Amino acid sequence: MAHFDLPPEQLQSYRAAAPAPADFDAFWAQTLAEARRFDLNATFTPVRTPFVTVDVFDVTFAGWAGQPVKGWLTLPRARTGRLPCVTEFVGYGGGRGLAGDHLGYASMGYAHLLMDTRGQGSGWRQGDTPDDAPGAGPQVPGVMTRGIQSRDTYYYRRVFTDAVRAVEAARAHPEVDGARVAVAGVSQGGGMALAAAGLCDVQLCLPDVPFLCHFDRAARLVDSFPYAEITAYLKTHRGRSADVFGVLAYFDGVHFAARAQAAALFSVGLMDEVCPPSTVYAAFNAYAGPREMRVYEFNRHEGGENVQALERAAFLARHWQP
Amino acid sequence: MAHFDLPPEQLQSYRAAAPAPADFDAFWAQTLAEARRFDLNATFTPVRTPFVTVDVFDVTFAGWAGQPVKGWLTLPRARTGRLPCVTEFVGYGGGRGLAGDHLGYASMGYAHLLMDTRGQGSGWRQGDTPDDAPGAGPQVPGVMTRGIQSRDTYYYRRVFTDAVRAVEAARAHPEVDGARVAVAGVSQGGGMALAAAGLCDVQLCLPDVPFLCHFDRAARLVDSFPYAEITAYLKTHRGRSADVFGVLAYFDGVHFAARAQAAALFSVGLMDEVCPPSTVYAAFNAYAGPREMRVYEFNRHEGGENVQALERAAFLARHWQP
Amino acid sequence: MAHFDLPPEQLQSYRAAAPAPADFDAFWAQTLAEARRFDLNATFTPVRTPFVTVDVFDVTFAGWAGQPVKGWLTLPRARTGRLPCVTEFVGYGGGRGLAGDHLGYASMGYAHLLMDTRGQGSGWRQGDTPDDAPGAGPQVPGVMTRGIQSRDTYYYRRVFTDAVRAVEAARAHPEVDGARVAVAGVSQGGGMALAAAGLCDVQLCLPDVPFLCHFDRAARLVDSFPYAEITAYLKTHRGRSADVFGVLAYFDGVHFAARAQAAALFSVGLMDEVCPPSTVYAAFNAYAGPREMRVYEFNRHEGGENVQALERAAFLARHWQP
Amino acid sequence: MAHFDLPPEQLQSYRAAAPAPADFDAFWAQTLAEARRFDLNATFTPVRTPFVTVDVFDVTFAGWAGQPVKGWLTLPRARTGRLPCVTEFVGYGGGRGLAGDHLGYASMGYAHLLMDTRGQGSGWRQGDTPDDAPGAGPQVPGVMTRGIQSRDTYYYRRVFTDAVRAVEAARAHPEVDGARVAVAGVSQGGGMALAAAGLCDVQLCLPDVPFLCHFDRAARLVDSFPYAEITAYLKTHRGRSADVFGVLAYFDGVHFAARAQAAALFSVGLMDEVCPPSTVYAAFNAYAGPREMRVYEFNRHEGGENVQALERAAFLARHWQP
Amino acid sequence: MAHFDLPPEQLQSYRAAAPAPADFDAFWAQTLAEARRFDLNATFTPVRTPFVTVDVFDVTFAGWAGQPVKGWLTLPRARTGRLPCVTEFVGYGGGRGLAGDHLGYASMGYAHLLMDTRGQGSGWRQGDTPDDAPGAGPQVPGVMTRGIQSRDTYYYRRVFTDAVRAVEAARAHPEVDGARVAVAGVSQGGGMALAAAGLCDVQLCLPDVPFLCHFDRAARLVDSFPYAEITAYLKTHRGRSADVFGVLAYFDGVHFAARAQAAALFSVGLMDEVCPPSTVYAAFNAYAGPREMRVYEFNRHEGGENVQALERAAFLARHWQP
Amino acid sequence: MAHFDLPPEQLQSYRAAAPAPADFDAFWAQTLAEARRFDLNATFTPVRTPFVTVDVFDVTFAGWAGQPVKGWLTLPRARTGRLPCVTEFVGYGGGRGLAGDHLGYASMGYAHLLMDTRGQGSGWRQGDTPDDAPGAGPQVPGVMTRGIQSRDTYYYRRVFTDAVRAVEAARAHPEVDGARVAVAGVSQGGGMALAAAGLCDVQLCLPDVPFLCHFDRAARLVDSFPYAEITAYLKTHRGRSADVFGVLAYFDGVHFAARAQAAALFSVGLMDEVCPPSTVYAAFNAYAGPREMRVYEFNRHEGGENVQALERAAFLARHWQP
Repeated sequence: MAHFDLPPEQLQSYRAAAPAPADFDAFWAQTLAEARRFDLNATFTPVRTPFVTVDVFDVTFAGWAGQPVKGWLTLPRARTGRLPCVTEFVGYGGGRGLAGDHLGYASMGYAHLLMDTRGQGSGWRQGDTPDDAPGAGPQVPGVMTRGIQSRDTYYYRRVFTDAVRAVEAARAHPEVDGARVAVAGVSQGGGMALAAAGLCDVQLCLPDVPFLCHFDRAARLVDSFPYAEITAYLKTHRGRSADVFGVLAYFDGVHFAARAQAAALFSVGLMDEVCPPSTVYAAFNAYAGPREMRVYEFNRHEGGENVQALERAAFLARHWQP
Repeated sequence: MAHFDLPPEQLQSYRAAAPAPADFDAFWAQTLAEARRFDLNATFTPVRTPFVTVDVFDVTFAGWAGQPVKGWLTLPRARTGRLPCVTEFVGYGGGRGLAGDHLGYASMGYAHLLMDTRGQGSGWRQGDTPDDAPGAGPQVPGVMTRGIQSRDTYYYRRVFTDAVRAVEAARAHPEVDGARVAVAGVSQGGGMALAAAGLCDVQLCLPDVPFLCHFDRAARLVDSFPYAEITAYLKTHRGRSADVFGVLAYFDGVHFAARAQAAALFSVGLMDEVCPPSTVYAAFNAYAGPREMRVYEFNRHEGGENVQALERAAFLARHWQP
Repeated sequence: MAHFDLPPEQLQSYRAAAPAPADFDAFWAQTLAEARRFDLNATFTPVRTPFVTVDVFDVTFAGWAGQPVKGWLTLPRARTGRLPCVTEFVGYGGGRGLAGDHLGYASMGYAHLLMDTRGQGSGWRQGDTPDDAPGAGPQVPGVMTRGIQSRDTYYYRRVFTDAVRAVEAARAHPEVDGARVAVAGVSQGGGMALAAAGLCDVQLCLPDVPFLCHFDRAARLVDSFPYAEITAYLKTHRGRSADVFGVLAYFDGVHFAARAQAAALFSVGLMDEVCPPSTVYAAFNAYAGPREMRVYEFNRHEGGENVQALERAAFLARHWQP
Repeated sequence: MAHFDLPPEQLQSYRAAAPAPADFDAFWAQTLAEARRFDLNATFTPVRTPFVTVDVFDVTFAGWAGQPVKGWLTLPRARTGRLPCVTEFVGYGGGRGLAGDHLGYASMGYAHLLMDTRGQGSGWRQGDTPDDAPGAGPQVPGVMTRGIQSRDTYYYRRVFTDAVRAVEAARAHPEVDGARVAVAGVSQGGGMALAAAGLCDVQLCLPDVPFLCHFDRAARLVDSFPYAEITAYLKTHRGRSADVFGVLAYFDGVHFAARAQAAALFSVGLMDEVCPPSTVYAAFNAYAGPREMRVYEFNRHEGGENVQALERAAFLARHWQP
Repeated sequence: MAHFDLPPEQLQSYRAAAPAPADFDAFWAQTLAEARRFDLNATFTPVRTPFVTVDVFDVTFAGWAGQPVKGWLTLPRARTGRLPCVTEFVGYGGGRGLAGDHLGYASMGYAHLLMDTRGQGSGWRQGDTPDDAPGAGPQVPGVMTRGIQSRDTYYYRRVFTDAVRAVEAARAHPEVDGARVAVAGVSQGGGMALAAAGLCDVQLCLPDVPFLCHFDRAARLVDSFPYAEITAYLKTHRGRSADVFGVLAYFDGVHFAARAQAAALFSVGLMDEVCPPSTVYAAFNAYAGPREMRVYEFNRHEGGENVQALERAAFLARHWQP
Repeated sequence: MAHFDLPPEQLQSYRAAAPAPADFDAFWAQTLAEARRFDLNATFTPVRTPFVTVDVFDVTFAGWAGQPVKGWLTLPRARTGRLPCVTEFVGYGGGRGLAGDHLGYASMGYAHLLMDTRGQGSGWRQGDTPDDAPGAGPQVPGVMTRGIQSRDTYYYRRVFTDAVRAVEAARAHPEVDGARVAVAGVSQGGGMALAAAGLCDVQLCLPDVPFLCHFDRAARLVDSFPYAEITAYLKTHRGRSADVFGVLAYFDGVHFAARAQAAALFSVGLMDEVCPPSTVYAAFNAYAGPREMRVYEFNRHEGGENVQALERAAFLARHWQP
């Protein structure tokens, strides 16, 4: 069915029922504290690209457990003063790509730090960051169930920590205005943006068709990957669903949204079978800061694409070019 | 099968057997002469975009039968003197998109004119150019068999004429250096680049995984769209295959290649089931000008993507930044 | 799911909410008036077939904008007096086929005029009628979005006008009894029959599993082609859905049904994912004339096939052999 | 791959290597002798249809083991003298349908007897003939492996016997000219026509895209049903392939072809993955009588459809309307 | 959709509305009485296997109409006294396999009789039992519609009779304790276990994800085979649905459940599209004896697999090892 | 195509051209030496199962880097003296399952140690062994490209080391006869058996339809997973194919086969698209010890299943029950 999820009028007020785990904040406070024991050690090495309008830097910073995480920082070549900065996260399976692949935000005059995602970066764009995965038990292919045996070993604990550290890396650059930092991303990138916005203080949050929200509904509603990695795991590991959803509750965008204060611009595709609209609205309706939604009624997971890019540009301009 | 076409060593010398129709050049000379009876009337209207490093212009020029064809001209904002220009054509089903969608070439310091494709621009990126299709008989969905009843009414007669006029439009801009014009494109865009290089005098030609080459082999070799539109037509219109391939011979990239003098950079995916490697090599091996090939052994129709983008940038730099 | 649409008891009273556009009748009155400025010019040329029980004539008449539209007239060879006539329209993608392909109605003793559909006739049966499509903007493959930029350029404006003219062509034949004319067709042919019954005065209307009804529900309910061409268009042309459904409202079988006076025999397949049952019932329940429905509970879009053929025969016999 | 079988030039001389079993003729002689111990008992009961140009009779005759087999006899209503008769067999899964479904041959002025296929008639058109299957061991769904444990219990032993008896039933009708009998059919119907032509004396044979030819090649070449029922059986019943192909050798159209004397008109689709071209040519090249082939280069198993219908009509006219 | 059927809370009380046919019990009493006119004639022939912990016997007994049905009896080699016995039935398409394929129950110390299913045993595991199918009319491939023209000729009449006779064969073995007999099976095997439990006196019943329950809902709810064989039949044989479901009512697991007294352990997969959960619950909620359900929330038709095997073992141990 | 690989007669002599890397043996000698620095520490803890004919032990031993690897040891309960032992490895994605899932070999009177595969055990049967994957760079989902950046970090370095250690663990059990050890497995399990046979001294090797052989041919020949994980990686990481196949050369079953001395029983499915026959024959034809092949002509990757189980049993009996 084309519009397979709740009808639009119900979506607008849809909320997930389950509260965050009682020690959600403590878990994350401790996780970040542990990560911050390592020096951030952000380095920005200029790289040669074919482009004359921007400067690109190869970024390395200490992510989870101090492990090196890669990224690209792209700055407009013609720049003065400290720049507002978009910290962007990548969709499932992709990596940071090549230097100069990301011209958009820098061409608008902003700094742009794109974080590589550990262990991914092979499905549709190259990545360069390993995932050291200690103690990760059996899993289905992909990363959705890597380390899902406990909240401590779960893959996204490392990734969301990286994301927070990426924001810190952006702020560590002398040409970035730390007061004007946005987090952004599409799909998994949107889920990471929500996590970052819930875990650290940023000004703006731009999650498009965000993934990693309302896991327990998604896994029962859709057959599509990557949520279906969870279902595949539970198919084999029968009787572990309470444990698994118990772990996932510490990584649910709905709970990060409820903690975020940044002004947010969401988007959703009403035919999205990958990140179904009710899961996106569950995060949106829980979002604690000021929030706007752009709805794409006849789109699947591609969402708004270049039309949403203009929406994002206008949203940033409203905040950054007053 | 993964590598379904000829083995690599045979590909390198593979050639299509059939010669061009005897009046191939006459047909095209007359077609272009008719088009040029209309004033080119190229207009470049500045448009507002979120970008500060480039200037974008909404382009209109008179294509086939003088009909208005749209495009975007993107120039680096910081520019001096006349710029070399890449004239780019779009893949099957897509359109010119939105102003500012194409930052790459301008960010390298070149002018970039992207031509919209008539009647397409709805499959994967927006377009704005109608296709007036007089006398087009029955067809299968798509454009591959629109007007295939005769070479005169065939859809790509109009499109290739538009492509030649797009080069003329680029040269008509006062900031473009007409001696340094490249034609480029991926898939259908690559086929159009070959057509343009065979029909007019350009300096460089960059066809990636080009479509519209060696139709008669492609239709018998692969089941994939869009070549399969031809097969679908012949499935219903039994007994018309000599006529249909007779018409297509006037539009075959192999024959345009044999007339092209521009230095060329091709690319091919050895697992490409859409534009099978033997059809790409048929054009490459027929190519009359200096030519280089980049081979992507484990890629399908996506070909080299951002890796090939760097190859193109290096190729342009070799010619334009001596 | 097998029975994916509304349950049977809700189908029986299901109605589309939206009224016809205020100027629906004016639009069509003007459209037909323009078409009738051209002489109908119906010609009937005898053709040789292998059959001895029927006579077949190659039909040409002036359709939209006076453009020639083809068809076959099949008459029982043994005939006396003026015959009742079934004017039939073809399903999506097909054409009139070959002379003698359509023996059924003539073998019942009736005249039978089968209209070719402009620009189609290549997907599953040969056609011979071009579609001159002036000013048709970007579109997805197929005809559902050809010219959808305005009601004036929309493809089905031309087709429905052709359909009305086909009825006039049938009546123009000296052996046809103009008072006993039925319109009939399966799927798209059913949609065209409804349009003809809404736009001109016919005695009987036999729409089987009709297409082109309740577009706005269909596009949100099913993923299947051809309705999905509309969705595909809106996927790329974001933000145009009000415009598109605004145009389609002038072509909706629900509104034609509300204007039809002919006695009607509908059919519906309750598992039909191409023309979902609720869209068929929306037309049926809006139908202004006397109406009967034949329900095929375990059929998809094939509907009743030869069983429904007998139903149609019995229906015609009831009216034409009293 | 589109053209997946041998290239056209090899097809034209392709022959199956294996000879018929030594007692092939004895087996069939005995099989038919046993069947003929039962009185043919052909009855022709007039049925009411909506058609005025033909008369239709419900046929019953004694097939294999004297079991009643159904069919339709359709005669032109206007008839004089004894008529030539086409005995037609049905494709896999289909049945005789409803009275009056088959107007073509009778509308050409010939008698037409369509034989129902035992136990099928549920996949795509209704049938009415049971298959009493004594001693049929385990099988995969379908009929290809029903009773394949021995040539005596194999399903097609019963079916081909029915086919021979159907010809006898046609000849038993007082208005049929027994000297002018053709056997015809598409796909499985074509295989049955070949069997009938090899097993009894008929004037003409019209097998279109015939199935049931060169089983051992087909099962190794294609994955498609119904040949794949054999593969599916051998997948489970490992080590039985010599037995299975040993049984099938008694039912191979190649061997029937080598015994047929009727003038034949074959057809083949070069993209046919159901009845691959080399298996059709294997029968054609073995065919002992005069033979012609119609080749459909861009067709799959649908073959020539209405175009081939005209070829058949012309072929019949050449023999029957001198 | 992942969870496509009713929500869990509705499943728990879901019941089928239709009562059993009035003469349901009479029909089965007569059917079994007829079968019992033939001597059971159970034979147990020792076969050589590679295994040293069990003894395997090739079983033959007289099933429906006295026809020989095969099976394997597997006994622990170390055994004393009379053993409780699990009589097991096989899933759709499979057969009894090879001697020694079934070590589980005998390795628990029980007797285990696995019944071969007539005419199947080719889809995924070898079988050896023919299905003599007298008077079976047209059918779709498979056995779901074999003989569906009447309750007397329907395939499962023979199969369920075989199942009852299999229980009798188990009890006929001198080392089996006739008071401690369980019937068991997965999918079709589960449906047969329900039938056996409803038709004869057994101590325990273990139907896993049972098939053959609540046919009329299943056929309207899911598109998957084998239930879809019924839909496929009705698609062609239009207007026969009341007859078909009338016949199936005599074979519905829901009605057998309502007559069963054995203690039962069911299982269900909430994502099971082959045997949808509501049809399993319909049987479970109608079950007359003591009953337990094991729910696998994230499983499809595979259900509980080795986890459920442990559940079954524990259930048997509770009853058989007190 | 059904038989898509080389014809049988070519398969029988097919050999891979590339030699093993010069330091292949040194690499593995060092790898194993490093692993053996850790104490094997094999523990065998009895577990309760429902079975009375066997005893099952939960196995833990030190695999690669001393990390704990799990397994099940199953012994016939009635046993005397030291038993020959089958060490078995699991197919891709599966795990060791539950205690008692593996009754076959112990029921033949042998010891049976089934090794869990690190990090898998979630795709189709439960596993319990984590994969500590230090320094594993970007990868596609699955394990085929985990750590493929170097031979040192490649996933199968750890797995094959575990396999050798599993043999050592089997031998460490006091009831196992270390002189009579076989390695066995299906698919990935077969590849691991080959690796173990090439890396340590075992008496017998039973690889069924082995995976992980002749990577460079497999990746170019088939599109199927898991070999396609390699292709997917190279699709994104363009230009890395020499590196990747360079790493894989250290893990190729062809090279292990050339070093193995154990008597071997292979099997192959000629329609196997997962482990294509030419890759299996490449290992078989390189195999240095005595070797036999069982060919399943009409099977895909399921190969011989229970028929091959009997072949394995007979092969073991020949060596172990003289």
